[in-house]
Amino acid sequence: MTTDAEIVYFNGTYLAKHEVRLSPDDRGFLFADGVYEVVRSYGGTLFALDEHLRRLADGLAALRITGAEPAKLANVSRELLRRNGLGGDALVYLQVTRGAAPRRHAFPDPAVPPTVYAAPMPVRSRGDAATGVAAITTADLRWTRCDIKSLALLPNVLAHQQAIEAGAQEAILVRDGVALEGTATSFFAVIDGVVRTAPCSNYILPSITRGLTLELCRTHDIPAAERPILQQELRDATELFLAGTTVEIMPVIRLDGAPVGRGTPGPVTRRLHQLFKARIC
Amino acid sequence: MTTDAEIVYFNGTYLAKHEVRLSPDDRGFLFADGVYEVVRSYGGTLFALDEHLRRLADGLAALRITGAEPAKLANVSRELLRRNGLGGDALVYLQVTRGAAPRRHAFPDPAVPPTVYAAPMPVRSRGDAATGVAAITTADLRWTRCDIKSLALLPNVLAHQQAIEAGAQEAILVRDGVALEGTATSFFAVIDGVVRTAPCSNYILPSITRGLTLELCRTHDIPAAERPILQQELRDATELFLAGTTVEIMPVIRLDGAPVGRGTPGPVTRRLHQLFKARIC
Repeated sequence: MTTDAEIVYFNGTYLAKHEVRLSPDDRGFLFADGVYEVVRSYGGTLFALDEHLRRLADGLAALRITGAEPAKLANVSRELLRRNGLGGDALVYLQVTRGAAPRRHAFPDPAVPPTVYAAPMPVRSRGDAATGVAAITTADLRWTRCDIKSLALLPNVLAHQQAIEAGAQEAILVRDGVALEGTATSFFAVIDGVVRTAPCSNYILPSITRGLTLELCRTHDIPAAERPILQQELRDATELFLAGTTVEIMPVIRLDGAPVGRGTPGPVTRRLHQLFKARIC
Repeated sequence: MTTDAEIVYFNGTYLAKHEVRLSPDDRGFLFADGVYEVVRSYGGTLFALDEHLRRLADGLAALRITGAEPAKLANVSRELLRRNGLGGDALVYLQVTRGAAPRRHAFPDPAVPPTVYAAPMPVRSRGDAATGVAAITTADLRWTRCDIKSLALLPNVLAHQQAIEAGAQEAILVRDGVALEGTATSFFAVIDGVVRTAPCSNYILPSITRGLTLELCRTHDIPAAERPILQQELRDATELFLAGTTVEIMPVIRLDGAPVGRGTPGPVTRRLHQLFKARIC
């Protein structure tokens, strides 16, 4: 799939990506004034699509962007897979902005139609679950509404780049001594035999794979708790892992250069990965 | 000047705005991965252009975006005024992003050419210096690198909209009990006869008009100090004002619904406004 020839969706129309005429007045370009989702398809079937569209609707409501009709994006997503011949594993990217209007901070008044964009993306995992990935910890510079899946991703970009340059695949963001989440993933630790992850708050995204992971723990009697992971507890963790639409369940085998546990994917993470794989089939 | 017919600059070419073909893969659209400037022209002459371009270069360096050659934007800015017949007062908007590349958080490797966009904008002041404006205070939700003039402006958008809906023209952002700056302006208070504004740090933008205001104070023996303005000190302020490229020096006569001082522009603000106007002539 090349970047420009693929069929995308833009404001009601399917067209080749290079035909999209995004306005430089778009508030996504000028102000990061919008939200997005990444949905995964397995064997041509979109996974947890309703949950993704519900979160998109929640984000639009939080930002008071109207007129996008997120429910319609279910059919758009399926149609994009069909038109691009993507019967296997793929991602669908969805983005809605407050639309194009002369530049000023306040919402356009009267409102303008939102910009609705959707495009297929290849699955580029950040690693292999069989061997795991390395991660670093870094200061969380983000704003305090990380529960909104907004386009204001510059701090995530910078932290992720820092990880890459350190030879790692993800950066775990630490705020006030708490290891919250990755730049594009949720973060879990196994400490004293309990699977731990930060509770939902304005400091983390309510990740769909995070919720599924907790549900798998409950269903299969794996001890789990939504309780903040203190940075100082990380050295006591026997296992660490990431969770997300793209990485699924991904063991972290090195953190800040030091091995996690035995330096290989641990038993709890491997079990959750198997349960996750069974769930998506 | 209509929105679509005006001549803009896009990646080396002058063209009508509606002819711009911004890619939906642009990292400005996807990640807020870029910086911007707004430069003002008075009577066709761009004011403090070198300072704006230096700050743009600083922002590009902070984000490690290369290849944009900000110095060339001096001529681009002048050419935009000329081609659009803007011999009077106007604004020139400049934006540089990390360019268009398949979506992933890390910097494209190898790097792609940056997107360089410039466009004229009409001067839309947030008020009249003769009568002043109203402002509100609100929690600063932004990230912790506010010294970078980045595109991640969603928190600024939301705070400014909150001000508008409260019948005010600007929102003063308060973090940890300190009144830092507006959503698109610097913030000053006159307390015990001293002009005060937050010291430069990662929590505020190093505003060019802020610097000029402090310089005018020094030159004209107006007592001034770069010292944090505590929220609890705001009630003791005899005058408040905003400073910025668009608002210039703008008295704040009401804060959170209550009059500031006598509820009219105060003598120190009026004097600084006069000195500012004399400086730009």
